[in-house]
Amino acid sequence: MLLNLRVFQFSAVFSAPKPQKKAFFPKVVSVRSSPMGSASYVTSSALLFRQMFEKESCTYTYLLADASHPDKPALLVDPVDKAVDRDLSVVKELGLKLIYAINTHVHADHVTGTGLLKSKVSGLQSIISKASNAKADLFVEPGDRISFGDLFLEVRATPGHTQGCVTYVTGEGHNQPQPRMAFTGDALLIRGCGRTDFQGGSSEQLFKSVHSQIFTLPIDTLVYPAHDYKGFSVSTVGEEMVHNPRLTKDQEAFINIMANLNLSYPKMIDIAVPANMVCGLQDVESKCSQSIS
Amino acid sequence: MLLNLRVFQFSAVFSAPKPQKKAFFPKVVSVRSSPMGSASYVTSSALLFRQMFEKESCTYTYLLADASHPDKPALLVDPVDKAVDRDLSVVKELGLKLIYAINTHVHADHVTGTGLLKSKVSGLQSIISKASNAKADLFVEPGDRISFGDLFLEVRATPGHTQGCVTYVTGEGHNQPQPRMAFTGDALLIRGCGRTDFQGGSSEQLFKSVHSQIFTLPIDTLVYPAHDYKGFSVSTVGEEMVHNPRLTKDQEAFINIMANLNLSYPKMIDIAVPANMVCGLQDVESKCSQSIS
Repeated sequence: MLLNLRVFQFSAVFSAPKPQKKAFFPKVVSVRSSPMGSASYVTSSALLFRQMFEKESCTYTYLLADASHPDKPALLVDPVDKAVDRDLSVVKELGLKLIYAINTHVHADHVTGTGLLKSKVSGLQSIISKASNAKADLFVEPGDRISFGDLFLEVRATPGHTQGCVTYVTGEGHNQPQPRMAFTGDALLIRGCGRTDFQGGSSEQLFKSVHSQIFTLPIDTLVYPAHDYKGFSVSTVGEEMVHNPRLTKDQEAFINIMANLNLSYPKMIDIAVPANMVCGLQDVESKCSQSIS
Repeated sequence: MLLNLRVFQFSAVFSAPKPQKKAFFPKVVSVRSSPMGSASYVTSSALLFRQMFEKESCTYTYLLADASHPDKPALLVDPVDKAVDRDLSVVKELGLKLIYAINTHVHADHVTGTGLLKSKVSGLQSIISKASNAKADLFVEPGDRISFGDLFLEVRATPGHTQGCVTYVTGEGHNQPQPRMAFTGDALLIRGCGRTDFQGGSSEQLFKSVHSQIFTLPIDTLVYPAHDYKGFSVSTVGEEMVHNPRLTKDQEAFINIMANLNLSYPKMIDIAVPANMVCGLQDVESKCSQSIS
């Protein structure tokens, strides 16, 4: 009874209609982080961040929200259809308002959860790059910003795995997360990169994308890829610049490596790509795209 | 050539024999974090932290190091035998000195990597709780501290899943990580807990352990379990106090839930437990324990 009471009191504090922000964010501490990718996870005065893993396709989905905003607006990067209920349970429990479901590209190895999320969350909008030629509610181009509360993601074009690949990078400026975070999709993986032998892929383009759009970010920028197959969860730009076995090579050597991977045909590609071109849903017109630019 | 040069220059900066610490930790920013487990990952002026996943047994291994110390002393929590090479590659690339391999308990679902690590890393010491009755180089008891550089983990007894389960909690005080981090093993999982039907398990004991040793930590303490089966990576004490479907119940209801889980016999238990009692190695005397208290 005593324990129940304690839980109730705790719960009551956090379900108060107008909680004081200080009660939610009681601690302000100093942080330093290492450019060698080593030190701490990302920090911000406002950012709520969760990394989630879908085991079958080894896909990472990222939840970001502005926890200091009254509405706690949130977005999901690269949701997976099979994990939508899990993702929504976290969103609900943390009291967030999910406004965007965004993809880094048209995935070939899993079906996006975007369409399912749209059918379950009123007002949620799907986002993908214009260059992907896929359907969505909103299309982004290099330099665009995706705002959620007072935070935002910046869009960088990183084609090469597919023609429409983009990397979403947390903003620069007051109250934006430090270090910055780059959601690199399949352009840059931890100690690897996405394959370039289908969906308009190009090794030369991927090499240029990573070097011009990702390796030019601050070296302490945290790298959060769409996949990992060895159980790594995060790296940094500085770490990949030194230790990535492919992208530390020169362009010619990189192209040669990519041309000799001898990878098998992706199991899911014939299902995933057509589905992901239309938000992961068959019933496109009624559930998915309302606008195509 | 230009790109190669850039990488070389970058590499040279970080391989300088006596790098200035300011070059490694250039940014000092303000951080707040939400007690509802929401906001940011852990931060510290010194902590290097990595969470790694072993997919077959769904085990999380944690790498912690004091990156501000000249030696960069590091430890691994709950390493898995199959992932030892992966873990050591990160340790090497980040320039760390691995001094401890520690277990939260004698695992039943995977073989610990402790013994293998000892055979590959000179001077590395294994640690487990005295209450586990397992072999190791060092044994810890409640209240003990495990120091690495200027950082430390505090030992809390959290039996119930097994008799010897402990939770390792980052320290309190100047320069220790904020929010605190609790490596809960199988005592407290994200929205769950370890089973209590073998290895001296006790539902009553587990309930008391979690409420007295974990739920008494600051509510923004980050919960890092030994396993997750749904792809969650982190929670907080506050979040589990409100949303854990088992541990929000009273003791009687909790015991009833645990008595009716109807779980199958663990696949690995007959291999894993005997192996883990001796650091995960058959050849105990030569490779594992040098001292038993």
